[in-house]
Amino acid sequence: MRHHELPSTGPATFFKAPHRPDADRGEAHIGVLGVPFDEGASSRPGARFGPMALRDASGRYALSSEGFYDLEAGVMRLAGARLVDVGDVDPIQNAVTETFDRVTSAARRLRTVARLPVFVGGDHSVSFPVLRAYDDVPDLHVVQLDAHLGFSDVRRGSRFTGATAFRRATEEVPGLKRITALGLRELNSGREAVDKARARGHALLTARRVREDLEGALAEIPERAAVYLSIDVDVLDPAVLPGTSDPEPDGLGYAHVMRLIDAVVGRNRLIGLDLVELAPHLDPTGRSAQVAARLLMDTFALWWDPARMV
Amino acid sequence: MRHHELPSTGPATFFKAPHRPDADRGEAHIGVLGVPFDEGASSRPGARFGPMALRDASGRYALSSEGFYDLEAGVMRLAGARLVDVGDVDPIQNAVTETFDRVTSAARRLRTVARLPVFVGGDHSVSFPVLRAYDDVPDLHVVQLDAHLGFSDVRRGSRFTGATAFRRATEEVPGLKRITALGLRELNSGREAVDKARARGHALLTARRVREDLEGALAEIPERAAVYLSIDVDVLDPAVLPGTSDPEPDGLGYAHVMRLIDAVVGRNRLIGLDLVELAPHLDPTGRSAQVAARLLMDTFALWWDPARMV
Amino acid sequence: MRHHELPSTGPATFFKAPHRPDADRGEAHIGVLGVPFDEGASSRPGARFGPMALRDASGRYALSSEGFYDLEAGVMRLAGARLVDVGDVDPIQNAVTETFDRVTSAARRLRTVARLPVFVGGDHSVSFPVLRAYDDVPDLHVVQLDAHLGFSDVRRGSRFTGATAFRRATEEVPGLKRITALGLRELNSGREAVDKARARGHALLTARRVREDLEGALAEIPERAAVYLSIDVDVLDPAVLPGTSDPEPDGLGYAHVMRLIDAVVGRNRLIGLDLVELAPHLDPTGRSAQVAARLLMDTFALWWDPARMV
Amino acid sequence: MRHHELPSTGPATFFKAPHRPDADRGEAHIGVLGVPFDEGASSRPGARFGPMALRDASGRYALSSEGFYDLEAGVMRLAGARLVDVGDVDPIQNAVTETFDRVTSAARRLRTVARLPVFVGGDHSVSFPVLRAYDDVPDLHVVQLDAHLGFSDVRRGSRFTGATAFRRATEEVPGLKRITALGLRELNSGREAVDKARARGHALLTARRVREDLEGALAEIPERAAVYLSIDVDVLDPAVLPGTSDPEPDGLGYAHVMRLIDAVVGRNRLIGLDLVELAPHLDPTGRSAQVAARLLMDTFALWWDPARMV
Amino acid sequence: MRHHELPSTGPATFFKAPHRPDADRGEAHIGVLGVPFDEGASSRPGARFGPMALRDASGRYALSSEGFYDLEAGVMRLAGARLVDVGDVDPIQNAVTETFDRVTSAARRLRTVARLPVFVGGDHSVSFPVLRAYDDVPDLHVVQLDAHLGFSDVRRGSRFTGATAFRRATEEVPGLKRITALGLRELNSGREAVDKARARGHALLTARRVREDLEGALAEIPERAAVYLSIDVDVLDPAVLPGTSDPEPDGLGYAHVMRLIDAVVGRNRLIGLDLVELAPHLDPTGRSAQVAARLLMDTFALWWDPARMV
Amino acid sequence: MRHHELPSTGPATFFKAPHRPDADRGEAHIGVLGVPFDEGASSRPGARFGPMALRDASGRYALSSEGFYDLEAGVMRLAGARLVDVGDVDPIQNAVTETFDRVTSAARRLRTVARLPVFVGGDHSVSFPVLRAYDDVPDLHVVQLDAHLGFSDVRRGSRFTGATAFRRATEEVPGLKRITALGLRELNSGREAVDKARARGHALLTARRVREDLEGALAEIPERAAVYLSIDVDVLDPAVLPGTSDPEPDGLGYAHVMRLIDAVVGRNRLIGLDLVELAPHLDPTGRSAQVAARLLMDTFALWWDPARMV
Repeated sequence: MRHHELPSTGPATFFKAPHRPDADRGEAHIGVLGVPFDEGASSRPGARFGPMALRDASGRYALSSEGFYDLEAGVMRLAGARLVDVGDVDPIQNAVTETFDRVTSAARRLRTVARLPVFVGGDHSVSFPVLRAYDDVPDLHVVQLDAHLGFSDVRRGSRFTGATAFRRATEEVPGLKRITALGLRELNSGREAVDKARARGHALLTARRVREDLEGALAEIPERAAVYLSIDVDVLDPAVLPGTSDPEPDGLGYAHVMRLIDAVVGRNRLIGLDLVELAPHLDPTGRSAQVAARLLMDTFALWWDPARMV
Repeated sequence: MRHHELPSTGPATFFKAPHRPDADRGEAHIGVLGVPFDEGASSRPGARFGPMALRDASGRYALSSEGFYDLEAGVMRLAGARLVDVGDVDPIQNAVTETFDRVTSAARRLRTVARLPVFVGGDHSVSFPVLRAYDDVPDLHVVQLDAHLGFSDVRRGSRFTGATAFRRATEEVPGLKRITALGLRELNSGREAVDKARARGHALLTARRVREDLEGALAEIPERAAVYLSIDVDVLDPAVLPGTSDPEPDGLGYAHVMRLIDAVVGRNRLIGLDLVELAPHLDPTGRSAQVAARLLMDTFALWWDPARMV
Repeated sequence: MRHHELPSTGPATFFKAPHRPDADRGEAHIGVLGVPFDEGASSRPGARFGPMALRDASGRYALSSEGFYDLEAGVMRLAGARLVDVGDVDPIQNAVTETFDRVTSAARRLRTVARLPVFVGGDHSVSFPVLRAYDDVPDLHVVQLDAHLGFSDVRRGSRFTGATAFRRATEEVPGLKRITALGLRELNSGREAVDKARARGHALLTARRVREDLEGALAEIPERAAVYLSIDVDVLDPAVLPGTSDPEPDGLGYAHVMRLIDAVVGRNRLIGLDLVELAPHLDPTGRSAQVAARLLMDTFALWWDPARMV
Repeated sequence: MRHHELPSTGPATFFKAPHRPDADRGEAHIGVLGVPFDEGASSRPGARFGPMALRDASGRYALSSEGFYDLEAGVMRLAGARLVDVGDVDPIQNAVTETFDRVTSAARRLRTVARLPVFVGGDHSVSFPVLRAYDDVPDLHVVQLDAHLGFSDVRRGSRFTGATAFRRATEEVPGLKRITALGLRELNSGREAVDKARARGHALLTARRVREDLEGALAEIPERAAVYLSIDVDVLDPAVLPGTSDPEPDGLGYAHVMRLIDAVVGRNRLIGLDLVELAPHLDPTGRSAQVAARLLMDTFALWWDPARMV
Repeated sequence: MRHHELPSTGPATFFKAPHRPDADRGEAHIGVLGVPFDEGASSRPGARFGPMALRDASGRYALSSEGFYDLEAGVMRLAGARLVDVGDVDPIQNAVTETFDRVTSAARRLRTVARLPVFVGGDHSVSFPVLRAYDDVPDLHVVQLDAHLGFSDVRRGSRFTGATAFRRATEEVPGLKRITALGLRELNSGREAVDKARARGHALLTARRVREDLEGALAEIPERAAVYLSIDVDVLDPAVLPGTSDPEPDGLGYAHVMRLIDAVVGRNRLIGLDLVELAPHLDPTGRSAQVAARLLMDTFALWWDPARMV
Repeated sequence: MRHHELPSTGPATFFKAPHRPDADRGEAHIGVLGVPFDEGASSRPGARFGPMALRDASGRYALSSEGFYDLEAGVMRLAGARLVDVGDVDPIQNAVTETFDRVTSAARRLRTVARLPVFVGGDHSVSFPVLRAYDDVPDLHVVQLDAHLGFSDVRRGSRFTGATAFRRATEEVPGLKRITALGLRELNSGREAVDKARARGHALLTARRVREDLEGALAEIPERAAVYLSIDVDVLDPAVLPGTSDPEPDGLGYAHVMRLIDAVVGRNRLIGLDLVELAPHLDPTGRSAQVAARLLMDTFALWWDPARMV
């Protein structure tokens, strides 16, 4: 794996990984696909530039074949892990149905390329077409880290926004049995949405509950399941990550989120992962993209187990 | 007409005018409608916040009943002009057809309320549904001040973006006889679009031609016609107005644009006006919205003739 | 109550509430007045744009008559609450005395219009003229959430800045018996100011004490009193809310502040409320205004008790 | 004259000149005083940080005793010129009268220290107290480069804002015979103000007239007079200098302004100079302060004539 | 040539061209190399991010095999032109000599790959190691568009900054016969540097001279020579392109610069081209990178002549 | 000690202290030197402007001879403390060796001037030449608050970056016996660096460990030693201080850092202090510099003990 040394050298790919739009089946351990689409954003748009910003910022965390040395645990992390950047889906403007078909199709393909398919949004509406690519998984659990529920039937006239993504997913992905949503704190989730989600057995936990009773929250995370993890960066407090469409105060800290992800990844078989709602233009300090990049790499490190990869 | 003195007082309306969403027929000389829609933007979104930013910035140019004193001409401008803010169209997300129907319908209504209906975008795609409200005008001329032609049939898969607005308008507005587009300088207008536009008799002038031969450009502007004026703020050089989705260098200066508008307004019957593509988040200095506000008010002053208004 | 659906539609009023500058006596449960004045700011000015920014940002939390669904408690919040935007005071430049008279007079009027009068600054100096409008309350307690004491007699030559507001208030509001100031952490409160405040029986608690002993801090909050709550947004850590004139590190988190407000509102009769020192130009991410808007709405939800309102 | 080489070294003084708050009579050729006061600003405040920003930015144009080599003219400029930074006036908050007294008094003193006293604002209201320090000059001409007239009697309730500075000056400075205002283009100068100014024989030229007939404008500039030059940075087009309180489009370019200054300085005896309305927070690119710094140094170079200085 | 349609899709390469770090000899018509190095910047650093920003911004001007339609001339531009992104030089920190060796070596290689080698800086110091790669050209003319002369022997203690690049080049590139520098306007070019440059026969023209006598300036541009064109973006007025280390007011407009480039390219054999000093962090509007991208593509279009390419 | 009252008055020095570049031996209790050098930064440069920004921001915390009143402890802090600003080191570009010699020499001199020498960077590479000035201290302990280890032998080809500063120091400062590094959390400290540091007996604690076991962390801090404290502002969470070159999430809060500093200062003899990596251009809110200024002043207050100073 060849990469430039300095973070400012380019062209920028995710973590300076090789750009492999035509990657072969099984080529990578981790494959990252950009989904630069934000027509599902109801307030401040701009998440379409999330993949570009994440590529630019992730150069600081370029992954080499030796991996990283973990000073605390005294071990190497991610040694031998092969990461590829498979490029971006190319959305069609004003044509959400066709764009979503492209997303689903690219996601299906990425599942054949990489053990861990990773999707970088874009707004949260893209989780729906990604999840459709998992329609063959018999017992799919979704863990959603998010300030907003995303389980409305229709919001502001549309069935395909960030606010409806998981409602659509449960309708169209037959194996999707359970959603565990953590970090919720929007002002108005909608009674119908909440009732419907709970009626289906989904677990909905507010950010406050996660903070005040982390053990209780961890207990809600599934075990030994096939899990798809959806990380909306607004699960983090806007102090930590301000560059997002709909910041809500009183969110989770970085350490909270990593504890949750640790549990998700450690106890389950992670079959996919998205990180959405990074809107870089809203944060001129650039740290939002840097925090998101680090969050992904820390997640990869938790997930990676060379024994498992043979 | 009551208004606050200091620019920072609110709530902000266009030029501190009364907010009259249910204005009566003939109530105003000038009526301003916001169209906060930017799903037609192909690159950097954010023009949906154009009306909000223009309201905030326009407080410096609050119009009182006495009007403004023009130091150079030694006369009062806009004395007695009644201006109202009729509010905003409320778009439906991911539903361009329905949203455009709402725009057309609000535009029809505004035509009954005000002698000069003014539409504040939003991206340039909104000019199409606004123009549809003029389908009763037998001989409609459009003067388009713009860096981009906007005459493509389909662009990036969509028929309803800023790049296609005037093509759609010529298809659906039967009286639209001629377009005079001034200030063009995008890299690629598209051969098919240019040929089609020219075949229909439209006049296409680049920014360079306007600058180098202003008299020639003025000669292309119609006379004694019913004119709809569409001002894309990117007609201005990005040095003058950087807060826009697709800045193109080598644009027109403010004085050039005002000369063109002076000719449009002075020689014709102005029956409508839009100002689009103001994307305020892209300009942290705030001057883009202020320049746009001033441009509108200067246009109103050129248009206003008390004798005509009786 | 009519309001636009999308946050970007306007004209912006506080929480998309009706603009009712001439609201009738008793018309509203909650009435919000802007006080766009910042001549009391000693360092970075700009809080005069606080009301404008708060109106723009609060569209995401538009209040409808059904209220909000609280996912955690499983109840609707603020159902039936009538909120109005009564507009702004119009300051006179360089004339603090006359401006303050206008503030006092508008505050008196708002007290007749709404059960909960809410004042949006502006810098902290405006709390003084607002409090003067409560000179008829026999036993008035002020709870002040703030990084700075605001109890100096004279600061930088002036008797009417944010640093002197509460000193002036205790001098001119006869019923003002006690101030509980929470979150203090400025470098230099001034020995004379501190001694004077303590001599009058006011409780002064630093942010550190609040964080380390929240129960102790809660115990300092009055009970069964007529309370005026003054929220200086700099009580929050600047990480949470950077858009303010005088940020001080080591502040309170959003959850701390809401716990304090919960105690204030739950145990007492809240008779007024201000939120001051939001200086939006200092935060290009826009989240400062969004956090402030959410803080207000969360406070309204804690306060609202339909039974009490009959 | 000792100064650091790199622009980033400090502490920053004007052009890396020595800080001499107690400079002796006749010590300097050019003496620069900061006037960090912006309570005269009606819209966006922040010019109080003008002197700080100008000091920071001016390090690139540090003046050494050898002066600068002018490549075009093939001569050294400003060789031997002694420049000092005499520090700032310290304003008293909310006490415009006392603050203005301090300004006048510091200005009087600076006139004894330096042949060319230079005043860096602050908003334009400070020109009035500076001009008061010239009450001994029998026949004083003011050349004002400005977008706004500044000749109102009262504006927004105040007699001491940028909008009234020159009205006050003509009232209180007996020798002030004539004002030549160039670059005007505000929307509303006020009929009373314009009539009054013209009645007194002042020359008012719009930016348009200056641009279209520069020779005519130059002809309005006095000759062989004692001239005080007041440069409001908003005379420049906001494209050139966006960091100012009240940007108005259609302004002058840098070359226009230098042509005017060349005429002022070349034909007259320059007895003072101010540069006002630089509001650095409004321009995150930093170029506004850099352009202002260069403008001052270019003015000094035009003024400096070693023969005259003996 | 495959590329994404929307500007926001990635990974970003220059103009969405294929990334070909190991391009074969003669593979491309135009080959672009990034040189992300800014240790030669004396004031505000950040140009090391120039290549990254230019890649991100250039997506709007993606080049397809059909080229662009030129509305004014009625012809296709750049049809059939093959453009490749050959990646970036990887600098070694604090080791200017070794880094420059890498630059020279990459430049030599790029000359074999592409007819028109294009170098994107980085600060202006990189022109020196690039020019060293042209040491086989017997009669090399450099046309330098720049605000600063860059001909000092030593500046701020260093021989390898932007201020010394062309002095070094004339010393080490034997065939470098003449430099034509256009757009100069720094305050202090240094007498020794100017004298030396003129003694060698170089032509030095200020921005003012170019503006006031464009024909005269064009006459200074060589004819029928092998020309290397060095474009420092600060040759443009900072109003047009503010994102650069050392902005100087009174610069050239975009049209001026394109006229000069037209003459350079039309009359000569262009053998190399650099664009330097784009410091994107200094311009939050993003237009600096967009203007620079457009400037390059417009230059390519002027250069491209299919007949010549056979 | 004379200083201006308002934070905006200047010229700005550290905490409005007198500028004493030629301060006499023993003149001050606290002496602050700027080191505006950032050629050791591998990613985002700009820390060369750290001293300038800190001077500008520190005016809010101007130290008068009476000191500050500590409301919580009920005592005056820093009464009688004499603080001076001794100016900046003037770096030589592209000449790290010579620049570091200048730093060492200025640091030696400052040690004679002030009891507490304070060094404001600049990037972290400057700690090495500062520490060289302590080569006479027999038993020197360094406490390093930092996200990054800084103990690599070579990084990105260089031996003199922030990543190698403490390795170099242990090689060249004979008395440097022990480093306690607290707050570490970079992704990759480098196995060789960690092993080497631990082999030398240095204590390396991650931010997580500090947060989760503060008492344990405090126990690692030396006692009764001669301590040099190096504060890299990135030890703070980027939410608290975003304006730094290499932000890493999951950092320490302000209170954590002050607890650590309290222990360092309270138990030991503090013989020097640096604060590095403040890159102000990366934080347009300005709070990074304000937080850093407050952090320094709070540290001074902990250190100051009048009894000790006699």
